[in-house]
Amino acid sequence: MSTASMAGHLRPFKDYQAQHFLWEVSTDGRVATIRLNRPDRKNPLTFESYAELRDLFRDLAYASDVRAVVLTGAGGNFSSGGDVFEIIEPLTQMAMPDLLAFTRMTGDLVKAMKKCPQPIVAAVDGICAGAGAILAMASDLRLATPEAKTAFLFTRVGLAGADMGACGILPRIIGQGRAAELLFTGRAMSASEGHAWGFYNALHAADAVEAEALKLAQSLADGPWFAHTMTKTMLNQEWAMGIDEMIESEAQAQAVCMATKDFRRAFEAFADKRKPVFEGN
Amino acid sequence: MSTASMAGHLRPFKDYQAQHFLWEVSTDGRVATIRLNRPDRKNPLTFESYAELRDLFRDLAYASDVRAVVLTGAGGNFSSGGDVFEIIEPLTQMAMPDLLAFTRMTGDLVKAMKKCPQPIVAAVDGICAGAGAILAMASDLRLATPEAKTAFLFTRVGLAGADMGACGILPRIIGQGRAAELLFTGRAMSASEGHAWGFYNALHAADAVEAEALKLAQSLADGPWFAHTMTKTMLNQEWAMGIDEMIESEAQAQAVCMATKDFRRAFEAFADKRKPVFEGN
Amino acid sequence: MSTASMAGHLRPFKDYQAQHFLWEVSTDGRVATIRLNRPDRKNPLTFESYAELRDLFRDLAYASDVRAVVLTGAGGNFSSGGDVFEIIEPLTQMAMPDLLAFTRMTGDLVKAMKKCPQPIVAAVDGICAGAGAILAMASDLRLATPEAKTAFLFTRVGLAGADMGACGILPRIIGQGRAAELLFTGRAMSASEGHAWGFYNALHAADAVEAEALKLAQSLADGPWFAHTMTKTMLNQEWAMGIDEMIESEAQAQAVCMATKDFRRAFEAFADKRKPVFEGN
Repeated sequence: MSTASMAGHLRPFKDYQAQHFLWEVSTDGRVATIRLNRPDRKNPLTFESYAELRDLFRDLAYASDVRAVVLTGAGGNFSSGGDVFEIIEPLTQMAMPDLLAFTRMTGDLVKAMKKCPQPIVAAVDGICAGAGAILAMASDLRLATPEAKTAFLFTRVGLAGADMGACGILPRIIGQGRAAELLFTGRAMSASEGHAWGFYNALHAADAVEAEALKLAQSLADGPWFAHTMTKTMLNQEWAMGIDEMIESEAQAQAVCMATKDFRRAFEAFADKRKPVFEGN
Repeated sequence: MSTASMAGHLRPFKDYQAQHFLWEVSTDGRVATIRLNRPDRKNPLTFESYAELRDLFRDLAYASDVRAVVLTGAGGNFSSGGDVFEIIEPLTQMAMPDLLAFTRMTGDLVKAMKKCPQPIVAAVDGICAGAGAILAMASDLRLATPEAKTAFLFTRVGLAGADMGACGILPRIIGQGRAAELLFTGRAMSASEGHAWGFYNALHAADAVEAEALKLAQSLADGPWFAHTMTKTMLNQEWAMGIDEMIESEAQAQAVCMATKDFRRAFEAFADKRKPVFEGN
Repeated sequence: MSTASMAGHLRPFKDYQAQHFLWEVSTDGRVATIRLNRPDRKNPLTFESYAELRDLFRDLAYASDVRAVVLTGAGGNFSSGGDVFEIIEPLTQMAMPDLLAFTRMTGDLVKAMKKCPQPIVAAVDGICAGAGAILAMASDLRLATPEAKTAFLFTRVGLAGADMGACGILPRIIGQGRAAELLFTGRAMSASEGHAWGFYNALHAADAVEAEALKLAQSLADGPWFAHTMTKTMLNQEWAMGIDEMIESEAQAQAVCMATKDFRRAFEAFADKRKPVFEGN
């Protein structure tokens, strides 16, 4: 087709070579799974894995194939967060400019997750602590097992709950009072609390949670994925807007979506009683 | 009474002649019911009903009689939203300026609901979908039946969840994680979920929900309704303020209410152990 | 130690002489209890107690000893709010500048509670109404008994729910829909609702709630209390920020905490498997 297109700036990610975690792509290329994979240490983050995750989520803006991401762990745990000896100890001896470079790098990972166009579904089992809890929080949708223990435990290493946006983002998910308790005390939120409070969208058994996350991600990838990128953008962009500004912003955003052929395709499929096929244009 | 007054710019709405829905006013004139009334099609919205609702909610700022509004449907459903053949199909063939004119018109309806001084109580039974779900969301208080099915299903027609303010408003009501799920997937929120999540204030049986909504609206209309208009204004105005600005704004707003005779009337009634009569001045 | 320090501007508060409530300090000086203490009238607030509370919370920024505060009542009730005859009646006869001076003074109390560095734990039993409900709302953590009745009942005296920040703060804790109901109707929120909605962090029996609040406050005071002051600051500072600004703010805030010796102390205690001792530097 000779239509002018920005598609030339896109590239496939199915063969991305991950260095510090596993990267698995579904056979149709639409759903990628990032698996934190150091199960003997409960999948901690390191300086290197933070940086690679940040770069990968930034680059996913240019993916020609991947339309949704699943984020999970290995060996029955999600992630224990920043490793005490590989991250915490070096930090206790750094000068301020290096400390700020570190906290900005970890914050940049959350920004990159919020800005990548693909919806991110976290599948959480077992330990989900510190920066691990932040990665779950920064995902768009969250599934967990009944055994998931989610702890924003920065206070346990003498730090503030103000880490990677938690003091601003967590209250929007579970309310200001519950977020204050978790961030001041560092106590674990049980899976049933997480579900009742709206942190987890659903609970599934340990042998099912990853399949459910993949199914949800696949359904988003097979749906109007261009429109989903707009939903994600707007869900993250309107936090500090007044109601009038929200509504004008969405009037523009939705008009953009109405100008796509996907919208016409969805209508025609509805009228013909068949399943629509979306092409993202 | 010779006191200077703005009452001259007010007019009664009891005889308002609705074209695209039903308009019913209580015998005392204080509570108006807007009934979406095309039960054979589950009360869809049309270009004309959007526009009339927008204009009516704007004009209610000048009502001398109506002090609270009930918004409901007919035939066991609330509203199926924008009609697929009367709205969706024409939209799939419009040029961008017309699309933006449409999304701004629908957004203007939400703005008008948020800015009209009367509290709006939605009474929701059965289908509450698409723009219908938005009308419920944009109301101030929401009652439902156990059979209510509330779906922000824009994604089902290939569109974003960013419609009429949903990506900004819905997360403030039910939390960011639950809102993301409903807006990405378009799945129906059950009535019990809606109640547990704080979307619905209470559930009532189908043969009682409208009477309960009327009773609630009447109690607001019989209460300090000038002060209620300030409560509504401030509940909608402080979304993007810092805590200091919220508090200063409310110091001014409440001082205005303390300067009314209604405040003195309420105190005197309390001291005399009788029910106060509010006059809105 | 000859290190330069700001400690010279600090002073102990263990001997603070309260005029309009009780002030009790734990033997180690770290936890102070403010007890509203006029049990025959359910511990109402007066012009004088508002002003003293405002000044005390402001001054606590300079405390060398107190690291956490418990706020509670006496005689089985928390607080009935502004006294009808000592506060409401005089207000009904004041000129506008005096009304605004009053609403700003009460709002300044909430600002002072939000800005004092110590976490505030409310222990709520029985009546918690009007300005009493606001004091609970403005605390950082909230425990209650099953008998607690929490009512934002400004509407019952002809006023708006827009009082001391309630229209902005309460929706962030329990959601916009529930807050609207409580503020429009003035009805009491039961303790079980308050717990289910995230207003109360936990419920405890009447003979235990104060001890639990003290235990929680003590654990915060014995923890990394300098970092807690940063958690509190950021939980209150990010309400009107976008996600990017939240994350950059926390990158700076957490880098500050990482530059403390408390952070190193926590790591060393962890490595040595002993309990850390925090010094706030």
